[in-house]
Amino acid sequence: MINTLVEKIKKTNAPIVVGLDPTLALIPKHVLKKNYDEYGADLNGVAKAIVEYNKTIVDAIYDIVPAVKPQIAMYETFGIPGLIAFKETVDYCKSKGLVVIGDIKRGDIGSTSTAYALGHIGKVTIEGKEFKGFDEDFVTVNPYLGTDGVKPFIDVCKEEKKGIFVLVKTSNPSSGEFQDRIIDGRPLYELVGEKVAEWGADCMGDSYSYVGAVVGATYPEMGKVLRDIMPKSFILVPGYGAQGGKGADLVHFFNKDGLGAIVNSSRGIIGAYKQEKYAQYGPANYGDAARAAVLDMKEDIVSALA
Amino acid sequence: MINTLVEKIKKTNAPIVVGLDPTLALIPKHVLKKNYDEYGADLNGVAKAIVEYNKTIVDAIYDIVPAVKPQIAMYETFGIPGLIAFKETVDYCKSKGLVVIGDIKRGDIGSTSTAYALGHIGKVTIEGKEFKGFDEDFVTVNPYLGTDGVKPFIDVCKEEKKGIFVLVKTSNPSSGEFQDRIIDGRPLYELVGEKVAEWGADCMGDSYSYVGAVVGATYPEMGKVLRDIMPKSFILVPGYGAQGGKGADLVHFFNKDGLGAIVNSSRGIIGAYKQEKYAQYGPANYGDAARAAVLDMKEDIVSALA
Repeated sequence: MINTLVEKIKKTNAPIVVGLDPTLALIPKHVLKKNYDEYGADLNGVAKAIVEYNKTIVDAIYDIVPAVKPQIAMYETFGIPGLIAFKETVDYCKSKGLVVIGDIKRGDIGSTSTAYALGHIGKVTIEGKEFKGFDEDFVTVNPYLGTDGVKPFIDVCKEEKKGIFVLVKTSNPSSGEFQDRIIDGRPLYELVGEKVAEWGADCMGDSYSYVGAVVGATYPEMGKVLRDIMPKSFILVPGYGAQGGKGADLVHFFNKDGLGAIVNSSRGIIGAYKQEKYAQYGPANYGDAARAAVLDMKEDIVSALA
Repeated sequence: MINTLVEKIKKTNAPIVVGLDPTLALIPKHVLKKNYDEYGADLNGVAKAIVEYNKTIVDAIYDIVPAVKPQIAMYETFGIPGLIAFKETVDYCKSKGLVVIGDIKRGDIGSTSTAYALGHIGKVTIEGKEFKGFDEDFVTVNPYLGTDGVKPFIDVCKEEKKGIFVLVKTSNPSSGEFQDRIIDGRPLYELVGEKVAEWGADCMGDSYSYVGAVVGATYPEMGKVLRDIMPKSFILVPGYGAQGGKGADLVHFFNKDGLGAIVNSSRGIIGAYKQEKYAQYGPANYGDAARAAVLDMKEDIVSALA
């Protein structure tokens, strides 16, 4: 799957992933109303509205980006109906040829991590038949529990030719509280980065590993160091746009081959219609606004890399 | 909710939580067959079998334990039907008067952590009406992202009078890879423990905080230190039984009031019927075997504490 992601990035010339992180505040009122009227103003109605919202955005951008990243928390908050909307979103994005990165940040130990891995990027066998729970292409994984927690995901990656992005240095303001603490003269995130490189070494695609890392755009200097520590790992970079990261901050997340990173924007794309810059589209044309925002983001990143 | 947990522990004299972590290998064959025949040998059939299995166990133990802890990974692995079984399990356990600890190990940043918190221990508001997604009483939370990731859960705890257990020192063999690394002369898990105490200080129940910690039974010496660092935090202790922890290892996880810890056992209880010790019950009476195993565990812990 890492090979597929690399190919799609080359083809679109857009190292961009669109975060499908719907919230009640982002979904246009007319979409909510229509679905509330049809399905009820409840968890189910919201879930249906989410799917419509996502599909419209995906239809508007699927030919210019390689990947999407639905954040499962934004679906899980609406209980079972929300998770059904997550699954429908994953399936729809895959039907449009997009690589789907499930932003699930799971992580547990041994057989429990295996259960998450099988449910999200693998399969379970029931009476000799195989079934897939969610079937994303990549997922994000939390490393706090150590190798025991990550290895089961890697085993499933090898089996299924799928991939993971391990949290190394997250984009939020307090990420340094534990991640930046100095251990033997170096911050914790560097040690986690070394582990990512080590874990990834024995499950390589053509040029990059199935095991990638998450490093926030908001910490460009740390991104530079981590790029060197994990030369074969793709870096998933959150924090662009709404969280403050800019194209110029991203240069060092990439390798000299122009690859090695994929930059996420969520609100900046799916909520573009709410920004002054794209106000001319209006809430009715939120898909077109999202497309315009992707093209601007691409310009920003590609020109910074040039 | 921490007050309710303390009361229930006193009433049952059992600082025990039963982990409802069903797997295909643990569910007796006759339960699987019955549900496959009725609902199909697929994700849905497994989900129905899980609910039957859990209900039988809960019926057998609900009067002698204060709490249960369903591990969501074991449900999520079966996709949407599995998560429906999780929700039905939570609801059933609450209907029997049990405190439900959702072992979800979630953790993200800002609004994303808020979304998880609202979905699991809070509520969402749709057109002025409130809806609850999963509605557990407590959840487990991963601290790797720092205060930004944990604070949203705490805010919801305050609002809803619910609680969390933050991962501090996990029970698995490789937990030390990052958690034990020395920072300013002390291991990372101690720093996390200090944060737990700090986070918990401003949301106190009568004698304990809404903010607890997870510390593995497999590391009793570390449990002793962490007990002192977090005197007002309840400690959820996994790793008893199948993972190797014994009653005698647990003494230092408790405070002098005989409270402050709740010990989890999963396979050791729900799979008791498969152990030689409880073989006389047979697979048909797996509920009775689970009850016998709980009573033995209670004896082991209470006598160690005496």
